[in-house]
Amino acid sequence: MIGRRIERIEDGPLLRGKGKYVGDVEVPGGLHAAFVRSPHAHATILGIDTAAALQTEGVVAVLTAADMSRYLTNLRMPLGFPTTALPAGITPFVLTPQEVCFVGEAVAMVIANSRYAAEDGAADVQVDYAPLPAVSDCRQALEPQAPRVRTDFPDNALTRFTVAYGECEQAFAQAAHVFKDSLHQHRGGAHPMEGRGVVAEYDELRDTLTVWSSTQMAHELQFTLAELLGLPETRIRVIAPDVGGGFGAKFLIYPEEIAIAAAAFHLRQPIKWIEDRVEHFLSSIQERDQFWDVEIAVDAQARVLGIRGSMIHDQGAYTPQGINCPYNAVTGVTGPYIVPAFSIDAVVAQTNKIYTIPVRGAGYPEGAFVMERLLDRVARGMGLDRAEVRRRNLVTVDKLPYVKPLKQRSGKPITLDTGDYLQSQETVLHTIDYAGFAQRKAQARARGRHIGIGLANAVKGTGRGPFESASVRISATGHISAATGAMAMGQGMRTAMAQIVADVLGVRVNDVQVVSGDTSSISMGIGGFASRQTVTGGSSMLLAARQVEAKARKVAAHVLKVEEDALEVRDGVVRVRNSPENAITLAQIARALRGIPGYDLPPGAGAGLEATVCWEPDAMTYANACHACEVEVDIDTGNVAILRYVALQDCGRLINPLIVEGQIHGGIVHGIGNALFEYMRYDQNAQPLTTTFADYLLPTSTEIPHLELLFTQSPTAANPLGVKGVGEVGTIPVTAAIASAIDDALSDFNVHVSAIPVDPVQLVRQMAQAA
Amino acid sequence: MIGRRIERIEDGPLLRGKGKYVGDVEVPGGLHAAFVRSPHAHATILGIDTAAALQTEGVVAVLTAADMSRYLTNLRMPLGFPTTALPAGITPFVLTPQEVCFVGEAVAMVIANSRYAAEDGAADVQVDYAPLPAVSDCRQALEPQAPRVRTDFPDNALTRFTVAYGECEQAFAQAAHVFKDSLHQHRGGAHPMEGRGVVAEYDELRDTLTVWSSTQMAHELQFTLAELLGLPETRIRVIAPDVGGGFGAKFLIYPEEIAIAAAAFHLRQPIKWIEDRVEHFLSSIQERDQFWDVEIAVDAQARVLGIRGSMIHDQGAYTPQGINCPYNAVTGVTGPYIVPAFSIDAVVAQTNKIYTIPVRGAGYPEGAFVMERLLDRVARGMGLDRAEVRRRNLVTVDKLPYVKPLKQRSGKPITLDTGDYLQSQETVLHTIDYAGFAQRKAQARARGRHIGIGLANAVKGTGRGPFESASVRISATGHISAATGAMAMGQGMRTAMAQIVADVLGVRVNDVQVVSGDTSSISMGIGGFASRQTVTGGSSMLLAARQVEAKARKVAAHVLKVEEDALEVRDGVVRVRNSPENAITLAQIARALRGIPGYDLPPGAGAGLEATVCWEPDAMTYANACHACEVEVDIDTGNVAILRYVALQDCGRLINPLIVEGQIHGGIVHGIGNALFEYMRYDQNAQPLTTTFADYLLPTSTEIPHLELLFTQSPTAANPLGVKGVGEVGTIPVTAAIASAIDDALSDFNVHVSAIPVDPVQLVRQMAQAA
Repeated sequence: MIGRRIERIEDGPLLRGKGKYVGDVEVPGGLHAAFVRSPHAHATILGIDTAAALQTEGVVAVLTAADMSRYLTNLRMPLGFPTTALPAGITPFVLTPQEVCFVGEAVAMVIANSRYAAEDGAADVQVDYAPLPAVSDCRQALEPQAPRVRTDFPDNALTRFTVAYGECEQAFAQAAHVFKDSLHQHRGGAHPMEGRGVVAEYDELRDTLTVWSSTQMAHELQFTLAELLGLPETRIRVIAPDVGGGFGAKFLIYPEEIAIAAAAFHLRQPIKWIEDRVEHFLSSIQERDQFWDVEIAVDAQARVLGIRGSMIHDQGAYTPQGINCPYNAVTGVTGPYIVPAFSIDAVVAQTNKIYTIPVRGAGYPEGAFVMERLLDRVARGMGLDRAEVRRRNLVTVDKLPYVKPLKQRSGKPITLDTGDYLQSQETVLHTIDYAGFAQRKAQARARGRHIGIGLANAVKGTGRGPFESASVRISATGHISAATGAMAMGQGMRTAMAQIVADVLGVRVNDVQVVSGDTSSISMGIGGFASRQTVTGGSSMLLAARQVEAKARKVAAHVLKVEEDALEVRDGVVRVRNSPENAITLAQIARALRGIPGYDLPPGAGAGLEATVCWEPDAMTYANACHACEVEVDIDTGNVAILRYVALQDCGRLINPLIVEGQIHGGIVHGIGNALFEYMRYDQNAQPLTTTFADYLLPTSTEIPHLELLFTQSPTAANPLGVKGVGEVGTIPVTAAIASAIDDALSDFNVHVSAIPVDPVQLVRQMAQAA
Repeated sequence: MIGRRIERIEDGPLLRGKGKYVGDVEVPGGLHAAFVRSPHAHATILGIDTAAALQTEGVVAVLTAADMSRYLTNLRMPLGFPTTALPAGITPFVLTPQEVCFVGEAVAMVIANSRYAAEDGAADVQVDYAPLPAVSDCRQALEPQAPRVRTDFPDNALTRFTVAYGECEQAFAQAAHVFKDSLHQHRGGAHPMEGRGVVAEYDELRDTLTVWSSTQMAHELQFTLAELLGLPETRIRVIAPDVGGGFGAKFLIYPEEIAIAAAAFHLRQPIKWIEDRVEHFLSSIQERDQFWDVEIAVDAQARVLGIRGSMIHDQGAYTPQGINCPYNAVTGVTGPYIVPAFSIDAVVAQTNKIYTIPVRGAGYPEGAFVMERLLDRVARGMGLDRAEVRRRNLVTVDKLPYVKPLKQRSGKPITLDTGDYLQSQETVLHTIDYAGFAQRKAQARARGRHIGIGLANAVKGTGRGPFESASVRISATGHISAATGAMAMGQGMRTAMAQIVADVLGVRVNDVQVVSGDTSSISMGIGGFASRQTVTGGSSMLLAARQVEAKARKVAAHVLKVEEDALEVRDGVVRVRNSPENAITLAQIARALRGIPGYDLPPGAGAGLEATVCWEPDAMTYANACHACEVEVDIDTGNVAILRYVALQDCGRLINPLIVEGQIHGGIVHGIGNALFEYMRYDQNAQPLTTTFADYLLPTSTEIPHLELLFTQSPTAANPLGVKGVGEVGTIPVTAAIASAIDDALSDFNVHVSAIPVDPVQLVRQMAQAA
């Protein structure tokens, strides 16, 4: 079953409208919540008058920070990654008591018998704000005269760090050439089709608080609720039903999830809240801005000697989780290239905007954009072919495993394990006919068209630890269930997991019932992020299924009185090879291992035909990609059309090529959005300007060309499945490849794209300046 | 904590009326069920007219076997112990379609919005019965002309078996003396204070059928429901809340449990049914009758040479579980005595009465009664002291472990492991001043009083397999939970389990939250019967707690940078010995083992501060008891008063003496009920005559003397806790000891008690015959 293009078991229900999202969770007698959110980017709360709201028809309760302080052990959210060395008091409040620091910050929650009434009630809550000066631009935040982003925090610079190795000064001193660049990568969001949503119900009968949430982190939410509500985890069940995409937006545990659950628990009433799109723009996490000033030193052969510079990362108003994203961006710069010396000073700046955490790619796309833009500078500056510059600098196969003098945040060295980056690039260049492009370009130019080709390489560490859980159980009825802490959020994970189990147990994929996103099905679990789930959860699932298979074989050997290696497991039956009537079903074995009162179990197997595994990766495995594309730029409007897009990925072993392709498709589309469309704009007072899809442009199918996907499958020994993560690698090189192609299309105008998303107006302006 | 007289953690809520029994489970909008039960002991169902019932106000549905056939994969209950070699088609129906075979058999179920309406509806269901001849007495059932108990089964003898070893013919041929007896042990029930009860709710949101049932076997019920409903076990949750006693009555999975759950699942409505006491008399399991014809061969020194004879066991109309009870009764005869040759022919006879399965003691009280009555025959026949006859025949310490030439039904030999039966008897005789009794008796007789002393010995195999499950978890909030498949049913098991965990982890008993009887808390489990739970579940709990403690110690050693043996675990903290500030809490360790995204777990420990163990006993461990009592018989009325009762038990290590004493008290009271009061009577047509507590006498506190308990604690290596089961051993010798004392009290009349419960009218009649 592993490796087959099996249609996703999720698709039948989803396509027939039988999907079950949080919005579909209807608890009888349930109430609805709406949040009162700050219209100010920065203000002191002088008072909250709930009297009018409480008079609104249908309103049941109006809750503020004062209520939450009674309900919770702490009014502040816990820091998501508590090992990060960061100052205290930087996380957001569940409901904010005194000082709002971004537009959309929740200060009160209205509970009513309909969402309509709740929204009416929210409009009637009178919050008396005293506005304070706000900081919108992260560069301005660091200026000496800048107003404070939060009056309770002494410095708009949350933290500063430097990532450096090698002899950078010497490298630049000895360089044949040095090229500089100033790059800006703008704010954007994750924008899953389904926004956030929470339903919470306290069931007095079972003494359990059930929280349905559209989350990537069911177990983390369970733990956070337990900690803040002061309850044992065993009294809290978190269910993530069908999740309509996450992409990082649901990697965080949010104040709203706590507020809804706490209210449901304390009011003993089921409560539902479904985020609307404006709320998503205001109060779901975003990523970036980042401003980079960097330079690259190369020798006469265009071999990189060193990279140095500085970076400012816009963290927003709070730091709920840590600073992985800027750290990854900086350490991700060198990508698949050999960079002997390196020094980047990073500042994580606070601004009066919604906080940022990683979205798809988690800083790697930003790092790759920086590196690839610099290599294009080298090529142009030295009059070399862009592919050739990369050829001279890519890590070659003979150097693998290649231990970089860089560390992951966990402290482990970044080690590129397997792949053939040079060969990947050659394959892509061959496929897109890179060699023949000069002729195509000349022909187009002759017809007045400006086309260009671009390419970019990337690597992405995948399969991040610490572990993922999986449990395989064959019950005495013969049903096979597989539970995991890994999270299905639209990517087809249930199908992939079912394939792994089916492969080991010799059954059909549809025979395996995969349960994901339900803390009651497995006690431990981490969740979905960092292209980790098939690597970690899939490996645990493989090992758990193998343990179950081995157990079945042991029992069958005992019952059938043969050696274990005389047996084969297929179609739910363990058979003696060449003696098919000599057989026992998995259900019969499960029944034997269930035990009959007073009778012994089959010897040596232990109770239950089940196994739970929490496999821990020793190291991440690095997936690489090479993307190349052809674009055409309309020099009158600045419009960029992608004519052709070729993407090669090394995803290791493919569990299901259909799903992997879907992941890569989605990743590239995300990258195209970042490159050309998505731009979360704020004014100088940190008022968000793009809060609808009319203002904030998401790519749709009409903007996306046919994507030509290529795969290599480098073996990796980093996990027992031999897989690499695929969720993010498709995104990483996209902005760089498109920028490179635009430069090429506009080579007549000497344009160099230094900010994304690419703004057509700016392009036209640049062309005008060059003219 | 182990060994301490800790007050039961259950008692606070129970004494304050905060107990939660099935009757307290109120599902909003829940419906109520009442069963239509056969008034005939045997009849053909010609038709069921539900029209009038459906017109009854409040009635929602009337379901019959036809409906259940659609709902279920099988209309018949599965055989509880499927390894028993028994013919097919012997189990009861969920609802009976064609032929009722005992009074109380359920043929229809009425669902209504109140129990009142449901009962009214049930009264309006018109069942057209054609009565058939019924069999009431199991001896008559075996006569050639007896009517068939069930027309679909060819023989009223369900099965026949012989248990024999040694040279019995030779033993009797060479015997110095042979004594005979014919013994009758009447039918009785288990009669827990709380009868059966079921609430079932299908939760569409969570796609889970929850069934609350007052059962001793939550996991067995889950599996049976899964099998009959054709659902995966993972979709079914069984919860046994507080259970008000079981004693065997809740060891069986009942048709009512299936019918209620199936209706709730298919009608999508919560349904509740609480058994009333009449229903308990009619349709909850009972035990016996047994009729024995036995003889004993002894040599000139009263040493037993052999026992032989036959036994008829009244099985009732169906065999839902197997024939453990008659098997145990036969193999239990030899008890703690050396019997060189043995042969008993047993017949399991069907009758038109509610079926029988083991109640407290599971056949052992019946076997002990037979043996002790025979030894009293020997003593009286040879003019020897009763204690001396036993002394000459008890297995002595030097013979332990004593492998009997008898097998458990699982096939393992019955092996008496540890104990000192002779010393136990001497201690009891000393305590009750057996030596001085002749004088006391003479003094009483001089005052016209008839007092007697009796004694009896017993052994009971405890800790029956195949395993029991336990899971200990310390969550990252620091809460400690302990789940087990063992069933709390009033005996204080949660306290005992908490003591075991607290002892290992160095915490308070109240810090451990024990979850029992909830299939969602642990995937595997067996349940409560055969004095097994502390032995098997307690051992699993001990081992699981030790694994958690070892894991905590390993992580602490890593974090604190010391050797593991430098650490001590106490009060929820792992400390470096003699350096108390050098410490880490269990909660901190649990948090470390929960994992932080991207960071490694502490090495070598694995995810989660938790462990699950399903410990499997290699062999049962045998608890022994010696009871002695003084009684006074009123020769005018036949009334028997117990003046003094001394009971010594070897329970191995005592986890909580308070709880053990409670178990022994309860066991003796059950025995007293069997000896003097409880008698389930039927007329010749198998119509039950005793269906209220006015007719069926249960002993109450006024009938029970002060019970003087003594304990020895023989070590046993059969389980890591060194415990022996205590749930049943108190019951086993009681009837024999009381019968012996009555004989002694009425020695002037040469009375020999041969039937229990002792009937005062019969006693007076026997005295009159002797006069």
